[in-house]
Amino acid sequence: MSSNYLNFRNSVPWVILLLEALFLIYYFFLFSTLDGLDLLRSSYPEFQDVNHMVIFGFGFFLVVLRRYGFSSTGFNLLIIVLGVQCSVLVEDLLVFFHLEANEGVPKSIAKALISMTAVVISTGAVLGKTNLVQLIVMTLVELIVFRVSRRINRRYLQVGDHLSLMHVHLFGTYFGLAVASCFPEPSPRLDKNRSTPKSDLFSVLGSVFLWVFWPSFNSLLAQSRRIAVLNTYFALAVSAVTAFMLSALTSKDGKFRMTHIHGAALAGGVTVSFTAEMIGHPWIAMILGLLGSAITILGSHCLQRCLNPPLKIHDTSGVHFTFGLPAVLGALAQVVLLVIREWTNSSSLDYLVLLHIGAFCQTISLALITGFITGFILNTRPLKIIPVSKYFEDQFYWE
Amino acid sequence: MSSNYLNFRNSVPWVILLLEALFLIYYFFLFSTLDGLDLLRSSYPEFQDVNHMVIFGFGFFLVVLRRYGFSSTGFNLLIIVLGVQCSVLVEDLLVFFHLEANEGVPKSIAKALISMTAVVISTGAVLGKTNLVQLIVMTLVELIVFRVSRRINRRYLQVGDHLSLMHVHLFGTYFGLAVASCFPEPSPRLDKNRSTPKSDLFSVLGSVFLWVFWPSFNSLLAQSRRIAVLNTYFALAVSAVTAFMLSALTSKDGKFRMTHIHGAALAGGVTVSFTAEMIGHPWIAMILGLLGSAITILGSHCLQRCLNPPLKIHDTSGVHFTFGLPAVLGALAQVVLLVIREWTNSSSLDYLVLLHIGAFCQTISLALITGFITGFILNTRPLKIIPVSKYFEDQFYWE
Amino acid sequence: MSSNYLNFRNSVPWVILLLEALFLIYYFFLFSTLDGLDLLRSSYPEFQDVNHMVIFGFGFFLVVLRRYGFSSTGFNLLIIVLGVQCSVLVEDLLVFFHLEANEGVPKSIAKALISMTAVVISTGAVLGKTNLVQLIVMTLVELIVFRVSRRINRRYLQVGDHLSLMHVHLFGTYFGLAVASCFPEPSPRLDKNRSTPKSDLFSVLGSVFLWVFWPSFNSLLAQSRRIAVLNTYFALAVSAVTAFMLSALTSKDGKFRMTHIHGAALAGGVTVSFTAEMIGHPWIAMILGLLGSAITILGSHCLQRCLNPPLKIHDTSGVHFTFGLPAVLGALAQVVLLVIREWTNSSSLDYLVLLHIGAFCQTISLALITGFITGFILNTRPLKIIPVSKYFEDQFYWE
Repeated sequence: MSSNYLNFRNSVPWVILLLEALFLIYYFFLFSTLDGLDLLRSSYPEFQDVNHMVIFGFGFFLVVLRRYGFSSTGFNLLIIVLGVQCSVLVEDLLVFFHLEANEGVPKSIAKALISMTAVVISTGAVLGKTNLVQLIVMTLVELIVFRVSRRINRRYLQVGDHLSLMHVHLFGTYFGLAVASCFPEPSPRLDKNRSTPKSDLFSVLGSVFLWVFWPSFNSLLAQSRRIAVLNTYFALAVSAVTAFMLSALTSKDGKFRMTHIHGAALAGGVTVSFTAEMIGHPWIAMILGLLGSAITILGSHCLQRCLNPPLKIHDTSGVHFTFGLPAVLGALAQVVLLVIREWTNSSSLDYLVLLHIGAFCQTISLALITGFITGFILNTRPLKIIPVSKYFEDQFYWE
Repeated sequence: MSSNYLNFRNSVPWVILLLEALFLIYYFFLFSTLDGLDLLRSSYPEFQDVNHMVIFGFGFFLVVLRRYGFSSTGFNLLIIVLGVQCSVLVEDLLVFFHLEANEGVPKSIAKALISMTAVVISTGAVLGKTNLVQLIVMTLVELIVFRVSRRINRRYLQVGDHLSLMHVHLFGTYFGLAVASCFPEPSPRLDKNRSTPKSDLFSVLGSVFLWVFWPSFNSLLAQSRRIAVLNTYFALAVSAVTAFMLSALTSKDGKFRMTHIHGAALAGGVTVSFTAEMIGHPWIAMILGLLGSAITILGSHCLQRCLNPPLKIHDTSGVHFTFGLPAVLGALAQVVLLVIREWTNSSSLDYLVLLHIGAFCQTISLALITGFITGFILNTRPLKIIPVSKYFEDQFYWE
Repeated sequence: MSSNYLNFRNSVPWVILLLEALFLIYYFFLFSTLDGLDLLRSSYPEFQDVNHMVIFGFGFFLVVLRRYGFSSTGFNLLIIVLGVQCSVLVEDLLVFFHLEANEGVPKSIAKALISMTAVVISTGAVLGKTNLVQLIVMTLVELIVFRVSRRINRRYLQVGDHLSLMHVHLFGTYFGLAVASCFPEPSPRLDKNRSTPKSDLFSVLGSVFLWVFWPSFNSLLAQSRRIAVLNTYFALAVSAVTAFMLSALTSKDGKFRMTHIHGAALAGGVTVSFTAEMIGHPWIAMILGLLGSAITILGSHCLQRCLNPPLKIHDTSGVHFTFGLPAVLGALAQVVLLVIREWTNSSSLDYLVLLHIGAFCQTISLALITGFITGFILNTRPLKIIPVSKYFEDQFYWE
């Protein structure tokens, strides 16, 4: 077994080298020049916020497990830089074949960073259970499938560009869960997948960090950027309050539970991501924040007890209730708001509602199907290496 | 006693729910639409800096106590989001009754974040001794009284809008000290209110973090923003140097003390907050930074030995010398600079000086009086629950 | 010996006081007014990024040693604020004597922050071995010599202003190494100069933090800012990937080593610093990132085994391979790119190449020579105090 380990580990750098060589060859022969610098001119601060949030913030946010801090931050950096290069390349290929208009490199990077959130969320679902090659394969497959899903949404279901990117939470969660369901469950007696007070403190600081940057995330590529910022802010504020309230209500003795705050404080930002630019009154955003946070905390109780055990899903950082349920709620809210707004104009209403529901179903089903296939591939012989007893350990990868 | 605890803890979420419901009802029925987006257009980076500093930075800064890290960061987030909603609501009510001009939601949020600094400073004075309901009551009372104080300053004492906000350090400190004086002192043998090297490292990183963002804080709503940035920068630079110098001079063996650096490095930013936009030469800002830092370190020795024991004030994170004394110095410096500048124009000088001193005295006395009343209310039967022996412990609130 | 310590430590604050008094006197008598605020108007976010990165990020980055966290972050703050004041003063003196055009205070501060990177890098080479007075002397000497070096480069070797600042990595490294070579080597049995998993986690978070801000660092004062941002981004992305790849290839068992990732992830940013604005195709930046990262990791093996032991250099945080080698590579790449671009125009090519190589050699040789002299001075009687057995300990400076 030990030689098996070694052989595998020795193959990791070659996989990375091959991939990077492919990227370099593409960028050398085909890549168009650096242009479309307007985005950097007009919104460099927002761009940096998203960059900072995705690369530093999520690495920080994922330091949940007691013995997995190095891998959480390190692998997060690696897959994001690989993913961004891959995503910019795919975007450029689409421009090359005249399937998309050229919007410039900075916009490609911004979209790549937002799309990478899907991968980071999926990573959270299988945190500690995948080896690096599995992670890289998952990253590439997920990015390409998400791009396909966005293209279907935009072309056949009339979803705008920014909105198609905001499906990232939905896609990431259900893809990640489908992948996670193919991995064997860790023994319930294992205590390595628990957190310590120290790792909890780190991870809640990471959560507050993400909280601060979420308005920039929801508004970077939106049309009405300022409106999106404000609505996200209000939703986040209410969801942080609700997180404390419900955490005390649902736990024994009325104490707060750090994992609740950790996830539910961000739920508002996820919930309004679809509707942040179209909401005209802050109370709507606030209600969405409240519902998002509520569904996160109630979901964390229901899912962990009722849904996950029979389905044999082990969702390490609880992405299903942290990102998945609020995103589902946000998608429903989008339809409801649409119905209310277009009530008088009943001729086109049915059609519009159908399009929205279609986009929602398409995203989830594509995520689930490709997620299962990916999970299945990841668990075939050449890739599956770590035994369950070695889950959640830095030592396997780091000196 | 134990059932008493439980009853109390079980009431916490209902208090939060009631409050949030009130906010939602107000925002639903009365709140005006989202407008005045200019601030976000012209100074989103500064806005984000202040947001980042108040929500993430102060949470980080307050991780001083060894067993109170969760509560420091968690409760900081909760009271800030509650306070911002309350503050925006109060601002909107004033607009509704035509007492203030409508300046738009982003400006309200910016003012709310700056006002919340008062609450965060007061929190520092009673850190580890209040339960969450006490904290929330204190937050709401303090925000409303600070708004009243600002209104008096602006209406009767001709203090500008930005300047009235900069009284936040003065108000927060003396309100917090008055509240703290009503709490029973912890036993001096207790070691839970000490820091560990680990928590000190966290808290000094938080301090450096605040240092970086202080220029944005002092300039966000100023008229001459760039001048305010530069003067704050120079003052902060000199106060960091002075902090090291005086820390070595005043301690045994010439060693540095982390708590000195922690507070005094920021003193320059507090001291110039009143005068940052009117100082024309950097050396004045530098002198103010030097004096601010000096008064902080000397104050920390005098106050902790001479003033606090007889008055029975236990100021957990030393906000009196960290924020209070530099702010008093800054207010005096403002008068001195005014006298020097307006020396030739002696007709209006007396009147102007009187106005400034009036604003200063009004702020402090209102803070002290309402602080005592608040402290008294917080220590009455239904709110006072934690025994002194349970001070400074996360375990009381967190699983 | 103990009284020697005490005498010395008691002199530290007076040195700082003297220095700060000199600064204040200069700023009082000679300093011109606050002007040239354009930089803050047009690029406050980038300015804040660099400020944040140099003051907070490097402090975080240097928390490598197990018992030296306080000194790493604290002294970093102190020498940066001293250095910035000194650097702004020197710039102002040059304007005063009409040797340079007046470009305003914000630009001076920006240049000072970038120049301070040289000092921070040199500090990394002697981390844990210098006392505070040695550090301060080194800071002042290094800043002034770097200013001289920049002036020679600009005046006689036609190096642009931004480019002359980008020699900061080269200068800082070789100055630091020359200084470090004059210090006695710590005993190899000493384990205080090792890192712990905790300090490694801190320091890798600091590294990711710097990663995020590096594009702002390379572009703040550049002509084609947006191009510089993009090229730096691509180079950083590839160097992070390469860091993982080569770390696994060069270590036993194919595991990753945190110190590799720590340094090599940033190598791309250092390597393209000279050429970030003139590269027209991302693949060139990517190749440079790859080579920079490769030279860092291979260098870390070669230098630590072959070069450092015979030369008796003990480079605590490995700045030679982290910043030095990538910067040398970047300077070479600049010449190669110039030759390729100007190939047709052979008349001026030789001359241009000569100028570039001249600037490179001048920077390194001035750094080495003045570094040796500084190191020699720092090890003379009045300054040299810490015995080798007390290296790498916070306790010597902090209560």
